[in-house]
Amino acid sequence: MNELNHILRDALHAHPAGPLCVAYSGGPDSTALLHALAQLPQAQGLRALHIDHGLHTDSHAWAEHCRQLAGEWGVSCLVLRVDVDHARGYGLEAAARDARYRAFAASLQKGERLVLAHHRDDQAETVLLKLLRGAGPEGLGGMRATRRLGDGLLWRPLLDTPRDVLRRYVEQHALPCIDDPSNRDARLSRNFLRHEILPRLSQHWPQAVDSIIHSARLHRSASEALERQWRAAQSHLLDPSSGSLDAVGWLSLTPALRHPLLDDWLHSRGLTAPTTAQREQIERQCVARDGQLPCIRWPGAEVHVWKNRLWALPPQHGVDPQWQADWHGEPLALPDGGSLLLDPPTRLDSALTVRLRRGGERLRPAGDAHTRELRDLFQQSGMPPWRRVACPLLFVGDELIGVGDRWLTERGIALLAGAKPRWQAAW
Amino acid sequence: MNELNHILRDALHAHPAGPLCVAYSGGPDSTALLHALAQLPQAQGLRALHIDHGLHTDSHAWAEHCRQLAGEWGVSCLVLRVDVDHARGYGLEAAARDARYRAFAASLQKGERLVLAHHRDDQAETVLLKLLRGAGPEGLGGMRATRRLGDGLLWRPLLDTPRDVLRRYVEQHALPCIDDPSNRDARLSRNFLRHEILPRLSQHWPQAVDSIIHSARLHRSASEALERQWRAAQSHLLDPSSGSLDAVGWLSLTPALRHPLLDDWLHSRGLTAPTTAQREQIERQCVARDGQLPCIRWPGAEVHVWKNRLWALPPQHGVDPQWQADWHGEPLALPDGGSLLLDPPTRLDSALTVRLRRGGERLRPAGDAHTRELRDLFQQSGMPPWRRVACPLLFVGDELIGVGDRWLTERGIALLAGAKPRWQAAW
Repeated sequence: MNELNHILRDALHAHPAGPLCVAYSGGPDSTALLHALAQLPQAQGLRALHIDHGLHTDSHAWAEHCRQLAGEWGVSCLVLRVDVDHARGYGLEAAARDARYRAFAASLQKGERLVLAHHRDDQAETVLLKLLRGAGPEGLGGMRATRRLGDGLLWRPLLDTPRDVLRRYVEQHALPCIDDPSNRDARLSRNFLRHEILPRLSQHWPQAVDSIIHSARLHRSASEALERQWRAAQSHLLDPSSGSLDAVGWLSLTPALRHPLLDDWLHSRGLTAPTTAQREQIERQCVARDGQLPCIRWPGAEVHVWKNRLWALPPQHGVDPQWQADWHGEPLALPDGGSLLLDPPTRLDSALTVRLRRGGERLRPAGDAHTRELRDLFQQSGMPPWRRVACPLLFVGDELIGVGDRWLTERGIALLAGAKPRWQAAW
Repeated sequence: MNELNHILRDALHAHPAGPLCVAYSGGPDSTALLHALAQLPQAQGLRALHIDHGLHTDSHAWAEHCRQLAGEWGVSCLVLRVDVDHARGYGLEAAARDARYRAFAASLQKGERLVLAHHRDDQAETVLLKLLRGAGPEGLGGMRATRRLGDGLLWRPLLDTPRDVLRRYVEQHALPCIDDPSNRDARLSRNFLRHEILPRLSQHWPQAVDSIIHSARLHRSASEALERQWRAAQSHLLDPSSGSLDAVGWLSLTPALRHPLLDDWLHSRGLTAPTTAQREQIERQCVARDGQLPCIRWPGAEVHVWKNRLWALPPQHGVDPQWQADWHGEPLALPDGGSLLLDPPTRLDSALTVRLRRGGERLRPAGDAHTRELRDLFQQSGMPPWRRVACPLLFVGDELIGVGDRWLTERGIALLAGAKPRWQAAW
């Protein structure tokens, strides 16, 4: 049995059994991986997945090559065509990678493991790339050997295996491989490192790759030790009911804890992390003066500083303050994505007008001796400012008779005939 | 006032005042630093220090150049000649650096700050060098802006200043600089990075240096956060009275804490840290089986595993087990570096023989009904094994009458006439 078969057999032994899906680009590395796995009885329920990025005129032929070759080895190969969004502004490599991993995630079955051919030399390149992007210990920890992906797991069993082992396997078995010319394009960052930088480093430091790999292990361990620290800090700073974060407490953390804590807080809300510049803006705004309501926005999220806490929201679409709608009590979609309905469901005889706050509104809540400024009511109620602009106001003609699900005038109560407004804000 | 003067003035403002000593090699960077500081009234008690490594035939002329130029700028310049130990096996650069910093440390006055011209580009090189040596977050944190050195401090006020700022200053003031040809020797690691690698990286990533500096800041912060963790762990694992470390507790730490904790434990005892291979040996030996007494040695220290704890010692010189000496009770130097004397000081009429353990020794301690094997006495007493081999045994002819300061026979008590042996082990 070949060296590569041995490595993979040992790797399979060290992990719980389960179906495997090889990410098979057709290049030498994944070709060796798929062929070697196909030889192993331990590799159960093996299938292959080929992503056609559609970035090369031959890409359809490549997909066909993969499907056919896998078939010859007794492995079914699914081809997924993805659209690479060139316009996302952060480079073709990254866009292709994003599209590929989205397709992987969507295709994985529950409990299935996606096997990637990333090897030791890929790992060294990744670590250098991370350094050149200004990453911290988490980034310099390099690629993880396993992580969750979609309903399954992603698995890189060859991170300790030199590229040479895979290339020798390809030669020994005379395996046909796709030669994607983009792998030689030195304008692409990874290729530039592979062809221009790493050979020169290895010429001066023959142990360069070993050292980088060693460094990556230390950084992975450091990143895990730091994670324990910032998760402990997070549990103190986070208010689970509102999901908001103690701003000053967060700011007082050392950057090595502050940065990953913020990113995790946003990710766990389905939001994207800020750039360094955006995070620095949040840091500067953390100590907001009275009456200021700082908001830091980026395409993937917005963070508000309010009541000495940080609040994370998806990017809010500007709501047209002139929006209004006739309403008979039926479930009503509000312009921010929220909704309004009556409980119990009730059909109003004559329509009310629902609109948003435009300024200067006042009403006398039922049971209150005085007419109140809506502004004062909002402030006293502790409603977050980003909800106030989205709060539906109920009018009869020019008369405000209800505000969200908070206040009704006497007339409002009468007109709704005992039904209560239920307002579901988008955020 | 020039950009560099401004940077230095601001840096001086941000630190407590005190005498300054510029490390002045005569190269462009330290020339700019010294000249710019000499312009500033804020730079009090300024002097310069030039290290003559004696590695180049012109080195004496370089020293003269520095002394003269500094004098012209009103700064006294001390020249220190150092011997670079080529033979230390870890390269000329490192040996020269070691010799230089030892000379700096010895020359610094109490409260004096040694000012180094290391700049942003030097810092980026350092970070890359550390990665190529497999370092963790502490190493990738790069050079520290300040740290203790000898009786004073080391200070690098220009770590955020690009090399170009210093080179422009040299040009604008037409300052004469030494051109050390070794700075162009691409066989030297730092020069190789400076001339072969970083320009290529900057060609593909114009922000390469900025990114590396950013990464270094994150790693400095990470290293500090980790230090808090391992210092807390150390206080649990260390027995302050014996200086020994809980072996299994240490082994159970994550590497990011385990490695720096061990290194610090050794450094704080004046010992050198192990290489990775040596540390891995300690890790493997941590769980010693009964009766085993593992010892891991390297040129700068040795670590014993005994009673489930780690014990750090300086390298023990092999003690000649055949050593012996006649003794009349005077203070006696023992072959391991320890000593033996009598309390109160007493002159014995007839000489005893002092020798070390050779095996099979037995004696009957005064007050004990039975004769004992020395081996059993040692074991029951809990004396560390590395002390047992250095323990002085007192003989009259072939009769063992005393062991270190622990046991005397009836005859021993009589012969010492009431005086007590005091044994000071080297470790």
